[in-house]
Amino acid sequence: MRDRYAIGIDLGASLTKYGVVSDRGKVVTSGSRNTPVDSGPLGLRAMLQDSALRLLQKSHLRRIKIEGIGIGSPGTVSLKTGQVVGASPNLPGWTGVRLKQIFAKFNLSVWADNDANLMALAEHRLGAARGCRNAVCLTIGTGIGGGIIVEGKLYHGSDCAAGELGHMSINFSGNLCRCGGIGCLEAYVSVPALIEAARSEINLPGSSSSLSRPKRNLSLRHIFRAARMKDKTALKVINNEIDYLSTGLASVVNLLNPEVIVIGGGLVEVDSSFLQEVERKLKQKAFPSATRNLRLVKAKLGNQAGFVGAALACLDYTAAN
Amino acid sequence: MRDRYAIGIDLGASLTKYGVVSDRGKVVTSGSRNTPVDSGPLGLRAMLQDSALRLLQKSHLRRIKIEGIGIGSPGTVSLKTGQVVGASPNLPGWTGVRLKQIFAKFNLSVWADNDANLMALAEHRLGAARGCRNAVCLTIGTGIGGGIIVEGKLYHGSDCAAGELGHMSINFSGNLCRCGGIGCLEAYVSVPALIEAARSEINLPGSSSSLSRPKRNLSLRHIFRAARMKDKTALKVINNEIDYLSTGLASVVNLLNPEVIVIGGGLVEVDSSFLQEVERKLKQKAFPSATRNLRLVKAKLGNQAGFVGAALACLDYTAAN
Repeated sequence: MRDRYAIGIDLGASLTKYGVVSDRGKVVTSGSRNTPVDSGPLGLRAMLQDSALRLLQKSHLRRIKIEGIGIGSPGTVSLKTGQVVGASPNLPGWTGVRLKQIFAKFNLSVWADNDANLMALAEHRLGAARGCRNAVCLTIGTGIGGGIIVEGKLYHGSDCAAGELGHMSINFSGNLCRCGGIGCLEAYVSVPALIEAARSEINLPGSSSSLSRPKRNLSLRHIFRAARMKDKTALKVINNEIDYLSTGLASVVNLLNPEVIVIGGGLVEVDSSFLQEVERKLKQKAFPSATRNLRLVKAKLGNQAGFVGAALACLDYTAAN
Repeated sequence: MRDRYAIGIDLGASLTKYGVVSDRGKVVTSGSRNTPVDSGPLGLRAMLQDSALRLLQKSHLRRIKIEGIGIGSPGTVSLKTGQVVGASPNLPGWTGVRLKQIFAKFNLSVWADNDANLMALAEHRLGAARGCRNAVCLTIGTGIGGGIIVEGKLYHGSDCAAGELGHMSINFSGNLCRCGGIGCLEAYVSVPALIEAARSEINLPGSSSSLSRPKRNLSLRHIFRAARMKDKTALKVINNEIDYLSTGLASVVNLLNPEVIVIGGGLVEVDSSFLQEVERKLKQKAFPSATRNLRLVKAKLGNQAGFVGAALACLDYTAAN
C-alpha cells in the first residue's frame, strides 16, 4: 500500500512546529516559526494558514497528496467541534477559537486536539511508549503538558479535558495556581519555577553560590552545571524539583498504574541523572505493586512529537471516515 | 433467557459481606459476618470457605444453579492468578494468598479482584454511575478505596494496581503514610483521621467544644451533630476534611475528566451537606472544562456493592469462557 500524508501543526506558546508526515510517521519536510502571541487570535490564524499553505505548496511540487491537516493547540480542545473550550493562559484570547475553521479554505479534513495529547499519541505510536498498553506522557517546559494512553488508545475523558498532569495538587495549602487550583504540580515543577527557586536562594543574605556570580540571566544549564560542581544552592533547588515531581508522579502511578512514563521538555533534556533520581524517589513513594514493571523514560521524538501526532491523528480520522 | 447466578463475597477488614446475585444484579440472599482478622490467613480461609458453602447449600435448596464465585479483597489482586500481590495493611499476612485456590474444592469458576474495583463495577452496572462512560468511585471509611471506569470498562492498569485514590499525595511535605508514600489523601481523609483531628482540637488548652463533654468515644455522628449545632471545633475539622478531599478529587478530575464521581462509605453517609460542600470546592479548584458536566453523587448500593460487583464480574468471566 502507498503511504498516506497529512500536514501536522503544533501551535506552541513560543514556537510553532509543523511538517508533512506519512501514516508511518516519516517526516518529509518540517519547519518552525515564532508564535506571534502579541498579534492576538487574528495574527495566530494568519500564521497558521500561511504555514499550512506553504506546506501544501511544497507537497504539490513534490507530488505528495495531502489528505488533511492535524493541529495541536494548548488548552482543552473539543474533538467534536474542534473548538478551544478551555483556557490556555499562554495564548490570550485563544479560548473559543474554532481550530477547524481556520483551515476551512483548503477543503481538507481537519483534526484538532490538545497539543500534549498529540505528543502522547506520537510517543505511543513511534517513540518511547511504543507497544505499551497504558502510558503517561508529559512535557516539562514553561508549564507541564500531559497525555494518557489507556488500553492502547489516547484517553480524552468525558469532555476532552483529561491529562492535565500539571494541575494535580501536591500541596493542599500551597500557592494559588493561575488555573485556579491550589498547589498544582506546575507551580513547583517547570523551567521558570526552577529558575525562580534558584534566584530566591541566591538572593538570600549570606549566599555564596557560584550562581550569584554572573550578572546575566540564570538558565537551566547554569543551574545543572553548578550542581555538577557540587554547588549547594543548585543541588538544593534541583533536589526539591525531584521531590515535587516524584510526589506528583507517585500519585499518577498509584491511580493509573502505567507501564511507562515518558517525559520530554527542557527540564529532562539537560541532565540525564535528573530522571534517574526522579525514578528512584518515585519508586520509594508509590505502591510496589504499581512500580514493579514501571519504566521512566525520556521522550524520543523531541519537539517533532506534537506535529507528528497531529498528522497521525488526522490520518486516523480520514481513514475512518 | 433464564437468569444466571453467582456467589459474591466482599472480604472487608472488619466485616465480610456476601450473597447470591443474578446476572441482572438481583440479590437472592445475603449475609455478613465479622472478619476474624486475628486468626490470620488460615482463619480467613476457613471463614471464606464456610460462607461459600452455606450459600451453596441455600442455593441448592432453592434450586438455584451457581455458576461461580467472585471475591473482592483489599490489596492488589492479580486478575490472572487471583493472587494478592500487594500489601493490605489491614489484613496482616494476607499478601501472597491465592484467592482462587481457597474455593478450589467447590469445582466452580472463581474470579478475584480488588474490593474497591468490584464496588466500582457494581456502581457502574447498577448504581450511581450507571450509563456513564468514565467514572471514578471511592469509599471513605477506615481508609480510602477506589475504582476507575474508563470508556465503560473497569480499568485495572498494567499490573492490576490502578485506582488507589487514597494514595495520591496532597502534601509533598506531609506525614509518611503507612503505604510508604508522603502526604497521602488517606492520611487526611478517613473516619479515623476525622475523629483524630477532632480529638486533637478538643485537647487543646482552652477548648470549649461541646465535643469534649461526653467522656465516651468520639464518633462521626457526634462530630457532625456538633457541627449542625455550630460547634466551632466540629466545623473546623469538617471544613478541613472538605478541603483535603476536594483537593484530591480536583487532581483526579484534572487528570481523568470523569462524568461522575461516586462516593460511598461512612464519611458521606452521615451528612448530605458534606458532599455538596466537597463538590462546591472541587469545582473551584479543578479546570472548568473538566467540571462543566461533572456530577458528584453518593453511592447507591451501600455495603452490598462489593459482593454484587464480585458476583457480576464472575458471571462476566464465566459467560466469556
